[in-house]
Amino acid sequence: MKAAVLHRYDLKLKGPEFVRYETVDDPKIEKPNDVIVRIGGAGVCRTDLHIVEGVWRGTIDVDFPHIMGHENAGWVEAVGSAVESVKVGDPVVCHPLVTSGHCLACRRGQDMQAEQSSFPGLNAPGGYAEYLRTGERTLIKLPKSLAPKEVAPYTDAGLTAYRAAKKASRHLLPGEYAVVIGSGGLGHIGIQVLRALCAAEIIVVDRSALALGLAKECGADHVVKADGGEVDEVLKLTKGKGAEAVIDFVGEGGSIDKGLAMTRNAGSYYIVGYGGKIEIPAVTMIITEKNIIGNLVGTYAELVELMALADRGLVELATKEYKLKDANKALMDLNKGKVKGRAVLIP
Amino acid sequence: MKAAVLHRYDLKLKGPEFVRYETVDDPKIEKPNDVIVRIGGAGVCRTDLHIVEGVWRGTIDVDFPHIMGHENAGWVEAVGSAVESVKVGDPVVCHPLVTSGHCLACRRGQDMQAEQSSFPGLNAPGGYAEYLRTGERTLIKLPKSLAPKEVAPYTDAGLTAYRAAKKASRHLLPGEYAVVIGSGGLGHIGIQVLRALCAAEIIVVDRSALALGLAKECGADHVVKADGGEVDEVLKLTKGKGAEAVIDFVGEGGSIDKGLAMTRNAGSYYIVGYGGKIEIPAVTMIITEKNIIGNLVGTYAELVELMALADRGLVELATKEYKLKDANKALMDLNKGKVKGRAVLIP
Amino acid sequence: MKAAVLHRYDLKLKGPEFVRYETVDDPKIEKPNDVIVRIGGAGVCRTDLHIVEGVWRGTIDVDFPHIMGHENAGWVEAVGSAVESVKVGDPVVCHPLVTSGHCLACRRGQDMQAEQSSFPGLNAPGGYAEYLRTGERTLIKLPKSLAPKEVAPYTDAGLTAYRAAKKASRHLLPGEYAVVIGSGGLGHIGIQVLRALCAAEIIVVDRSALALGLAKECGADHVVKADGGEVDEVLKLTKGKGAEAVIDFVGEGGSIDKGLAMTRNAGSYYIVGYGGKIEIPAVTMIITEKNIIGNLVGTYAELVELMALADRGLVELATKEYKLKDANKALMDLNKGKVKGRAVLIP
Amino acid sequence: MKAAVLHRYDLKLKGPEFVRYETVDDPKIEKPNDVIVRIGGAGVCRTDLHIVEGVWRGTIDVDFPHIMGHENAGWVEAVGSAVESVKVGDPVVCHPLVTSGHCLACRRGQDMQAEQSSFPGLNAPGGYAEYLRTGERTLIKLPKSLAPKEVAPYTDAGLTAYRAAKKASRHLLPGEYAVVIGSGGLGHIGIQVLRALCAAEIIVVDRSALALGLAKECGADHVVKADGGEVDEVLKLTKGKGAEAVIDFVGEGGSIDKGLAMTRNAGSYYIVGYGGKIEIPAVTMIITEKNIIGNLVGTYAELVELMALADRGLVELATKEYKLKDANKALMDLNKGKVKGRAVLIP
Repeated sequence: MKAAVLHRYDLKLKGPEFVRYETVDDPKIEKPNDVIVRIGGAGVCRTDLHIVEGVWRGTIDVDFPHIMGHENAGWVEAVGSAVESVKVGDPVVCHPLVTSGHCLACRRGQDMQAEQSSFPGLNAPGGYAEYLRTGERTLIKLPKSLAPKEVAPYTDAGLTAYRAAKKASRHLLPGEYAVVIGSGGLGHIGIQVLRALCAAEIIVVDRSALALGLAKECGADHVVKADGGEVDEVLKLTKGKGAEAVIDFVGEGGSIDKGLAMTRNAGSYYIVGYGGKIEIPAVTMIITEKNIIGNLVGTYAELVELMALADRGLVELATKEYKLKDANKALMDLNKGKVKGRAVLIP
Repeated sequence: MKAAVLHRYDLKLKGPEFVRYETVDDPKIEKPNDVIVRIGGAGVCRTDLHIVEGVWRGTIDVDFPHIMGHENAGWVEAVGSAVESVKVGDPVVCHPLVTSGHCLACRRGQDMQAEQSSFPGLNAPGGYAEYLRTGERTLIKLPKSLAPKEVAPYTDAGLTAYRAAKKASRHLLPGEYAVVIGSGGLGHIGIQVLRALCAAEIIVVDRSALALGLAKECGADHVVKADGGEVDEVLKLTKGKGAEAVIDFVGEGGSIDKGLAMTRNAGSYYIVGYGGKIEIPAVTMIITEKNIIGNLVGTYAELVELMALADRGLVELATKEYKLKDANKALMDLNKGKVKGRAVLIP
Repeated sequence: MKAAVLHRYDLKLKGPEFVRYETVDDPKIEKPNDVIVRIGGAGVCRTDLHIVEGVWRGTIDVDFPHIMGHENAGWVEAVGSAVESVKVGDPVVCHPLVTSGHCLACRRGQDMQAEQSSFPGLNAPGGYAEYLRTGERTLIKLPKSLAPKEVAPYTDAGLTAYRAAKKASRHLLPGEYAVVIGSGGLGHIGIQVLRALCAAEIIVVDRSALALGLAKECGADHVVKADGGEVDEVLKLTKGKGAEAVIDFVGEGGSIDKGLAMTRNAGSYYIVGYGGKIEIPAVTMIITEKNIIGNLVGTYAELVELMALADRGLVELATKEYKLKDANKALMDLNKGKVKGRAVLIP
Repeated sequence: MKAAVLHRYDLKLKGPEFVRYETVDDPKIEKPNDVIVRIGGAGVCRTDLHIVEGVWRGTIDVDFPHIMGHENAGWVEAVGSAVESVKVGDPVVCHPLVTSGHCLACRRGQDMQAEQSSFPGLNAPGGYAEYLRTGERTLIKLPKSLAPKEVAPYTDAGLTAYRAAKKASRHLLPGEYAVVIGSGGLGHIGIQVLRALCAAEIIVVDRSALALGLAKECGADHVVKADGGEVDEVLKLTKGKGAEAVIDFVGEGGSIDKGLAMTRNAGSYYIVGYGGKIEIPAVTMIITEKNIIGNLVGTYAELVELMALADRGLVELATKEYKLKDANKALMDLNKGKVKGRAVLIP
């Protein structure tokens, strides 16, 4: 098959060739629950750029040559001997984590905490290719209303935003406030999910006027320019108290301290973006009784829930299509901030 | 002051004079936390008709002459010596239950479970009058966007619908279904609350085409005529499984059995309307693992939450104004089904 | 292999031969996730008597000849091609429901709500035999401290009691009360689970002095003889209010009405036993704001939790061993109330 | 009345006279809900030493002369005109925060988040005296089994430990682990509360062999000496995974980093002790999906719950009595680590 293959790091993201479009062996069914998916679309994620620039070295093993792509959707091409829940030809979207389903975390539905797992595109071959090998447990059949290439980015970017916003929505009551920091690829989904799942007033903070415009379209009640005075502005909007929930999709460049400062006493700060560091005196945590909540992608069931929102038009995701052979252009455009919405590679 | 006073039962609701518009003594501050409210509007509730026809004899003590009216809003007219949280002139809406705030239920915010309480309009003089004596703890200050006469019916009808719908929204996930039985005074609020607080698909069941039209306006995704085939229709809409939540605002005339039949295994049936009886074999409850949930008005904090929804326009309530001296006409119109929305008496 | 096989109903449980001890074909691996378990012990449940007397006709299909036994534990004898989580020789206890793991309920950990499933002993061959075919997903490996024949009855009787008591423990606070109706096979487990999971005062109601003695040993704070005055007695013990949780392991013979009467306003009545009918006016459910909660066995994860309690000695289960060839005696003893604890058949 | 009065800071806690035992004006009823309590016992807290050494300057206003003492119990001496729930002579324990009860946080039972409040002993005269002025809403009537001087320290030290342990118990399932860091005044209560409210295995970490001995008496399943290898030891006890809940009663001297390292992925770290700083990269919070939870004293209802545990002997607190005039000795003993359990001043 054809694939866009990564052969080496490019530590400064100089390009122009990050990956090489070439012919590689087709993936094969190896275990009874394996499934081969013909890729309909593979999302291009900032994490892919981080892989190229070697950020994850030491944390995630990338064996060259490596096929990236962890946001995948397509059609079932072949199934292992034990596969029962999908059949050849089914349109499917792939949860990013392949799990066995046997450990206690899996049995409780907490897929991301599985004891054994692989993450195609990171530590196994991914979806920048014509075909992908995944596990039966990752697959959700798509309704006719949703095309694989349109939903691929929901599997990681969308799901991560969904899970954090859903957690917040569980405690947000009418009359309360939610702050979303960062109205980009994840943030604009988070806003829509909050809109759908609770009646909190939504305040969106971003540096970019364009992003704030998108936030408005997505249902933000208030937008705040992150120009240095954003904490004061949020406090003003929340009667001096701060918001019951703050979801930080940025996680660097001062957003963490500001996010914590925007969080009301007894409220929760959800960390999703990364790069920065949380630093807060214990005494402050105690006097304010705040909560700091980590967030990691989401469960299979949550991806089903997100697909239900997408199916009903309650969440929409902008995508920009690139041919698989143009993967380098997609990566470079992403790196240069030229992609509106999410880039998707089409084989 | 002037009041519309009930002097005797009218067991068959013949009328035309249920209450007499007459002059009575003004209520006075008796305890340190008492507050006198000048009534801006008092909702006319079906429970008032039930009082007139003696349905509640034996359960709730009505001492004649009695002033009905348990859905009240207006302006603070006078305050007791210990009152701190409101001042004369404040526009307020009144939670229907007057509690001391000292028992453990109150301290946990479960106002309706208070150990000591009175319910003006039922077991104390109510708001079919120019002035009402209530307790400081019942009062919520109104924002300028909300006029007393427009929000009075939220305090019982609205709050009851809110609490049941909020309970359901706590477990309703995207991709799941909520059935609302009865799209009348309470039901049409319940639909709007579900719409605001979760992303379940909402199916509304009613006998009246008019009510189903209102349901659509309130945000129902599907409407089902209650013509005998409603259970099958709901099962069809829910892929044969039933709904994860069913809220029954009717509670009589077969709605209970049907509501339980519309409830999915492991789902919850919320009973709000009354008149009928719940009858179900234990073995059925076990095999289906369903839950049957009672609902009684709502807490003070929930009324604050509902006011927040109203303030933002997420919930709207149709009201029809009558002069206080025309209370008999309002009661008769309600009895004859001629009131669209909620009748409100204006002194 | 040898098995105790049911060939016909015995509608009046006359006996003496309910089942016939005979040689049948060994079960075989048919699907990739099948596992053959060599039975170490199979619990004898009242449900088995109900099967013999045809109570379940019309609800559960029993094809004669039928092998009963749904409370099974033993050692892995053979595994299908896709089985990864257990290996031949492992000591295991079997969750009673065999599920595929693919439906959304399974993915959320709600095994009992699985869309496809079989229940060996009811609608498939069970464990009154030397070998049992089950699915990989039912199996929990046992620690050395727990012998299969001692834990077999936990899989249904124990698990059902655990789930109901666990639900109650989620809302029972110190200073609150739990009533357990029936201190038999399930009830005495329920008491121990409540003891382990919360600090509510536990009141146990039973007709039998022997059962109340067992209740005391299991940790009951108060025992009440069910001699007609039990509702008054419970109200007296609970300061006239009733208990925040009532778990009814009887479910017939008046226990339901009494159980509901013992439930405090805003409290929950958990129905586990069956035979009787729930009958309560809607208005009562509303004024009291009670909840009626159905309970069906428990999840795989809950069986793991229960095994953890057993492993630490926080829950103990009395068993009485019978040889498999004496299955008729075990059934007859159970029918005559002669089994203290739970009868277990040993091949 | 007599009181032990603080007239100035003693920044290095040199002593020997921190407070002066002298005659001051009796407190008087000023507001309708005021209550004067005759002190039966006042707990001596490390926070009192912090006040003396000026640690709180800038955060909490101390106006000299100041009467410390925020852990109070005694008998009602006088009541304001609006007081209904207690009468002169009642034995009572005092929640430390005096609130109006009118704000939304109070109405939801979240007393510690009250918008208006005072904290006698910190920003108002406290209980190192014969009499204390507090508010009706702080008072819980004591059962005969509990003497004021024995329960006074529950109101802050006990309540803080209770709330954190209760939060943890809400998610701790059988088979899971709870780590308690620090088995001192708060920690030894926390262990007993965990023991009473859940079935998690409890691991206690402390530097002191004496404290670990107390931990064992309180119900710890495992004790770990904090000698540098405690993280490894906890990981070993938890099969390499860490604990689902870690409650840190130390909060300084490395306990925070270690506590976070002992927390299992998707688990929660509860911060109670203070002095140190939480520092953790955002990416770590995300990959591990941990939660960091602040904790501030507890609610009135939670103090009622804790009293119920104490009343039943499920929680015990060691106290050491000092005469009020010996307050300096009590403070000095505490400073020198000579108090076993909690020092209590008796007027």
